[in-house]
Amino acid sequence: MDIYKDFTFKDNDIPKYIQVANYIKSLIDKRKIKEGDKLPTIRELSKKLGVNNVTIVSAYNKLKSEGYAYQKVGSGSYAKRKEVASNFRKEYSNALKKISMGDLTDVIDFTGETTGEVLFPIDDLKGIINEVLERDGANALLSDNRNGYTNLIYTINKVFWNNKLNDEDIIIISGAQQGIDIASKGILNINDNIIVEKPTYVGALSVFKWRKVNLFEVPIDEDGINLNKFEKILQKNEIKCFYTMSYFQNPTGVSYSIEKKKRILDLAEIYDFYIIEDDYLSELIYENSLEYVPFKWLDKNDRVIYIKSFSKIFLPGIRLGYLVAPEVFSETLQNSKHNTDITTSSLMQRALELYISSNKWKKNIKNLNDEYIKRYTHLKTILDSEFKDMLTYNDPKGGLNFYITLKDEFKINTKELFIKLRKKNVYITPGAMFFTSQNDGQDSFRIAFYQTDKEKIEKGMKILKEELILAKELRYDKLN
Amino acid sequence: MDIYKDFTFKDNDIPKYIQVANYIKSLIDKRKIKEGDKLPTIRELSKKLGVNNVTIVSAYNKLKSEGYAYQKVGSGSYAKRKEVASNFRKEYSNALKKISMGDLTDVIDFTGETTGEVLFPIDDLKGIINEVLERDGANALLSDNRNGYTNLIYTINKVFWNNKLNDEDIIIISGAQQGIDIASKGILNINDNIIVEKPTYVGALSVFKWRKVNLFEVPIDEDGINLNKFEKILQKNEIKCFYTMSYFQNPTGVSYSIEKKKRILDLAEIYDFYIIEDDYLSELIYENSLEYVPFKWLDKNDRVIYIKSFSKIFLPGIRLGYLVAPEVFSETLQNSKHNTDITTSSLMQRALELYISSNKWKKNIKNLNDEYIKRYTHLKTILDSEFKDMLTYNDPKGGLNFYITLKDEFKINTKELFIKLRKKNVYITPGAMFFTSQNDGQDSFRIAFYQTDKEKIEKGMKILKEELILAKELRYDKLN
Repeated sequence: MDIYKDFTFKDNDIPKYIQVANYIKSLIDKRKIKEGDKLPTIRELSKKLGVNNVTIVSAYNKLKSEGYAYQKVGSGSYAKRKEVASNFRKEYSNALKKISMGDLTDVIDFTGETTGEVLFPIDDLKGIINEVLERDGANALLSDNRNGYTNLIYTINKVFWNNKLNDEDIIIISGAQQGIDIASKGILNINDNIIVEKPTYVGALSVFKWRKVNLFEVPIDEDGINLNKFEKILQKNEIKCFYTMSYFQNPTGVSYSIEKKKRILDLAEIYDFYIIEDDYLSELIYENSLEYVPFKWLDKNDRVIYIKSFSKIFLPGIRLGYLVAPEVFSETLQNSKHNTDITTSSLMQRALELYISSNKWKKNIKNLNDEYIKRYTHLKTILDSEFKDMLTYNDPKGGLNFYITLKDEFKINTKELFIKLRKKNVYITPGAMFFTSQNDGQDSFRIAFYQTDKEKIEKGMKILKEELILAKELRYDKLN
Repeated sequence: MDIYKDFTFKDNDIPKYIQVANYIKSLIDKRKIKEGDKLPTIRELSKKLGVNNVTIVSAYNKLKSEGYAYQKVGSGSYAKRKEVASNFRKEYSNALKKISMGDLTDVIDFTGETTGEVLFPIDDLKGIINEVLERDGANALLSDNRNGYTNLIYTINKVFWNNKLNDEDIIIISGAQQGIDIASKGILNINDNIIVEKPTYVGALSVFKWRKVNLFEVPIDEDGINLNKFEKILQKNEIKCFYTMSYFQNPTGVSYSIEKKKRILDLAEIYDFYIIEDDYLSELIYENSLEYVPFKWLDKNDRVIYIKSFSKIFLPGIRLGYLVAPEVFSETLQNSKHNTDITTSSLMQRALELYISSNKWKKNIKNLNDEYIKRYTHLKTILDSEFKDMLTYNDPKGGLNFYITLKDEFKINTKELFIKLRKKNVYITPGAMFFTSQNDGQDSFRIAFYQTDKEKIEKGMKILKEELILAKELRYDKLN
């Protein structure tokens, strides 16, 4: 079927190239042209629509400038649409959706993305919610400040920042994902250049792709991003911002050295870019050699947009976090939050405030550390004793994940490994989930111990080992 | 100071026009060039930077295509930035912020934007939250479905839609503002054309402006948008969507006639656009002559994105609502929600579900109707008896607002009126707040009775009357 046959020029007031571009846009939006489809050549389409070549060239340029098409050198123009989950991403997320909705007792979730297990004492929650309702009455429901509950902002500044921040620069957000979205809408525009770690958190990649910015991916070394490659990109491109997870980078588990953080902050000043620091898990440090010094503490030139998540360390399902804006973006980011959802639910903010300002917060963080360090040590011991020949990993020294790379002899595409393990009720996250290209991360996967106690860890790792040995044998059989 | 003096070409690999455009973008982002500032002429800038005219023309075109500049015919190019609150908008929002944070007892808030008064029985809330925590334990905190709490989606479909929707097309959102943001990110792109009512909700305008779409404003008649003007725009432009509040349009209070809704749905099919229906208050209908039939009920061709807010009719400060997606956008909008904040807080979703599925919901809506109809009738009586010579209004027959237009003899710029009334602790919303141009709506203002009981209505209207008479006398004195 010729999808261009219905096209007619409707209005002489609108330049022809705009009408052509709009028609193609509508075909892309309606999925009549699919992501990655080749667009007709200039010559073909000009002939088909009875216009000259320049009209089609201009139309294609317009599509490119609006993020609807891209050019492959020597091969023509291709359609681009808002990010659509690839087949495997869909399969992965459907699998998790399915297990989330069922009984999780027999599931071994190494993805850490379900929330069947809650370490938070539910009676504590009942207690603080009732205390807030008792204390504040109907006010508990009301927003007293557009940036978030005033006392929560005050308490965050006092308890976590020693009052070194301006209260006005703190914005309460509905979780870190919202923080990334708000920052993205507030400071990024279409075709802006940004640098991300490679691999990185897929939820951030999605936000940036929807914003239609240009992503530069820079590999991670043991102590943070590869500075050599980082600087080369800065020299060649006007970079608007750098998105980083400074502690237990997701998925690699890498934490930045202080030197590297300082150097990146210097570069931010020299090359005039901003740093989005996603601090999602820094409360869970298991080894003294790792010190907590986020970019934001070292930030002398107000270059850091700091995003803090409480999802994993307070209550899952209660979407709460905060963002610290550099003064220059403070108003913009407040407006961005306001346009996004006006404000975050007041009741839960009040509950969190009461929780932090009482001793319960500290106690809970200690409990979480006590439990997760056990799992971390246990899993590490198993990896070191049972998997030495099969894989390598970088010791995160904290957090909730190990990032595994298979050794040559035991290599299997980890998407396949996911499918094999799923049949045995064990779920891992294949490396490909953390890259923009599905061809990266084939030999890697992430193991999270957020939802697996010692018993599940043992059971799951046993099944993983069997599967890796089996895969090796199968390959060996094929070769012979 | 010459802001272009620091500019140098950094890299021969990047076309010169792109380097120039990026430099100007960075000046705009850093506020060194302000919104509305005239950019240098082509000739000036090409001379200054030592490049030829074509480079500057291309750079300016790039800026325009990315929404960083606009052209005034015969006058050159001007800078455009993400929407920044104008001075008055800032003044208005600061005033509200200030009163929200203080004691509201003596404040007469006709803006309806504070939430000092909560009609919702706080003990009911305690009851349902504890019931949910008792019943679900730790699960109360967990998300069992990416689109929202499964039982809430089920209950919404059953109770409000007679099971006529697909559960999969319902997405729980953190309030209507988020619904507009999600729809905007999901289906709109830079430079897309959309139609909005004139005047309209400023929170929607902000979202659309941040998305850098082209807004076409069409005036409102007594039974909805002016169809004549609406169709003329459709004939001349490829329109992507139409944003409408079908009941008690904010601020005019107008509700659409069924005929008009049907015609607009037909036009949506003919001209291939989608309707974003923002249904924020339709539970409050005070006259039988007004029937509840939203666009979505009449929607045979799956053209409507329906957004429902519960903020005003359930609990203020608890950001909850839902969105119904047309099948074609169902996945896109689910992803858009997920990228925005993963999911809405589970506990409050469970509380709302329990509230709706019990009889409490119906009872609460009845109570709200009983109270607000009293205020509505009372305010209408005052307007008809005391203000007949001074103003006109359109009877909303429901909702929470009257939209007032001053008669010639009593005309005063309503921004000035706002400032005069504020001194007497009475707050109104000037018409200018609902237009893209601050020059519109000068003679109009909105009075909301959401936060004013009968006594406050009487007191406030008395002060308003005195002020209008005073303003008239002052003007009379000046003329003589």
